Amino acid sequence: MSVFRVGLVGAGKIVQDQHLAAIEATPGLELVAYADPGVQLEGLPGFTDLTAMLDAHPEIDAVAICTPARLRHRLAREALTRGRAVLLEKPPATTLAEAEDLRSLAEDLGQVLFSAWHSRYAPGIAQARKWLSRGQVDSVAIRWHEDVHVWHPGQTWLWEAGGMGVFDPGINALSILTHLLDEPFFLKGAELEVPGNCQTPIAARLDFHLGDGPSGQARRIAADLDFRHEDPPHWNMTFETDCGVLALEGGGARLIIDGEVVIDAPEREYQGVYAHFHELLARGVSDMDITPLRHVADALMLGHRHWVEDFVDS
Amino acid sequence: MSVFRVGLVGAGKIVQDQHLAAIEATPGLELVAYADPGVQLEGLPGFTDLTAMLDAHPEIDAVAICTPARLRHRLAREALTRGRAVLLEKPPATTLAEAEDLRSLAEDLGQVLFSAWHSRYAPGIAQARKWLSRGQVDSVAIRWHEDVHVWHPGQTWLWEAGGMGVFDPGINALSILTHLLDEPFFLKGAELEVPGNCQTPIAARLDFHLGDGPSGQARRIAADLDFRHEDPPHWNMTFETDCGVLALEGGGARLIIDGEVVIDAPEREYQGVYAHFHELLARGVSDMDITPLRHVADALMLGHRHWVEDFVDS
Repeated sequence: MSVFRVGLVGAGKIVQDQHLAAIEATPGLELVAYADPGVQLEGLPGFTDLTAMLDAHPEIDAVAICTPARLRHRLAREALTRGRAVLLEKPPATTLAEAEDLRSLAEDLGQVLFSAWHSRYAPGIAQARKWLSRGQVDSVAIRWHEDVHVWHPGQTWLWEAGGMGVFDPGINALSILTHLLDEPFFLKGAELEVPGNCQTPIAARLDFHLGDGPSGQARRIAADLDFRHEDPPHWNMTFETDCGVLALEGGGARLIIDGEVVIDAPEREYQGVYAHFHELLARGVSDMDITPLRHVADALMLGHRHWVEDFVDS
Repeated sequence: MSVFRVGLVGAGKIVQDQHLAAIEATPGLELVAYADPGVQLEGLPGFTDLTAMLDAHPEIDAVAICTPARLRHRLAREALTRGRAVLLEKPPATTLAEAEDLRSLAEDLGQVLFSAWHSRYAPGIAQARKWLSRGQVDSVAIRWHEDVHVWHPGQTWLWEAGGMGVFDPGINALSILTHLLDEPFFLKGAELEVPGNCQTPIAARLDFHLGDGPSGQARRIAADLDFRHEDPPHWNMTFETDCGVLALEGGGARLIIDGEVVIDAPEREYQGVYAHFHELLARGVSDMDITPLRHVADALMLGHRHWVEDFVDS
């Protein structure tokens, strides 16, 4: 098995909670260094920035960029230009222009670029995808409800312009949906609830139409995203198809087909992320899917904003 | 010269003001019919919808879709699937998902698809593009000011969700800019002024950075769009370059280089649109550029909204 040496850029909470252990557990990946101006990780060479890390460790083959989203475009450009493969935490960039630029740069340079939508690696997803490919989806209902106070305490950036609000978790649902469905779907309307003191929605209801279907009744996807939900979270989606009903619960940890629990497994999404990254590196191909971010941009462009009560972080 | 038969879909104001005369004036294009459920055009076979028009006129090679934007995706899909080339008025679709779907469908079918950004055919644009390609652009200032009461009377859809507000004319500036510059640019911030009784901005200030430039000072594009401007409009952009200063005024009708008026000609944008469409048809290639719409989506995703006084249509 080919071995690839990985450097981390950004070493905050998600890296410490997920990336470090997942890289460690992935055969064929070797973590050699990290870059972060404000974090100390024990037992790993640390640098203040990407430039210094690559200067000191020319053997690094690939970098995983886990900084705040607004820094990712510049860092990914630097890494790609210096001949390194790149993994991008979700979302891959702040704007679609940045994301498309990285895709085209990686293609021009022949470098591997991977937009890591971690929710696609939940335990039930692969089998759900296979099962859904056998029939026609008639409708989808998504309920992505969580308590922002529990899951995002103190994340004030969520509420600022560009912070995405409820689309920060909601993009996980969209990343699963775009991965499960082989046909495109199109936003026809969106209702966004925005607290009076915030820039981004605390809740969103999205109405998509599936496929081109010019005749007959539209096949619909209804997505209901809400941050104002008491724990435990509901991260569920239900697919009505001509072959039966498929449900994913717990963000994809549980797969239920026609009422029967088929999979119910502990979450190990980031191991799936890095196993896929290794496969991309070994094959020398990219997986830079921008569609989840594009759907969010469409929702924020097309959505009707309603003003709701101020949000108070508690 | 090859002759292509054209059918119009949608026959409202822009068609009567621009498309009819432009098609008439274009060698190699022959207008044979139109479809519109609510408009009567003299001397041209009319149909209530696209399906009926194509059924009755199988000789139609290409359709120009000039309906309200929300109808374009379905109509373009139908026309492409029935083997016709398609011209789309701007913007090409309501969402990026729809626009990307049309691009990929046309590619799969080997059909010609053209997103007609009419402002790119203003008299000074072609020469400006040639001149700018010789040097490096250091900064761009765009001022796109007009009186909404004069230029968009009664267009209430502008202010509804998805209606784009000041981006309806502003996307013309962005379509020129993306056409003139060979390098990408990236939105770093946007301030949007939204009337309290509207969903869309009446004014926007956009801050783009040009190119990748990781070192030194960023090269910037400042775009200032405003609907609250007394006639006459200012549709101007100024490029500071290492070879001098280039200015476009009047939406591109006047080209001024280092203070000297190089071009000052009457507007005939739609003749340029149809001349280009004929060329695409003759060569069998598409020109489906989505970047102007993508920049608008980025601005509405990243922009900071400020609430300003209610808009009253007068």
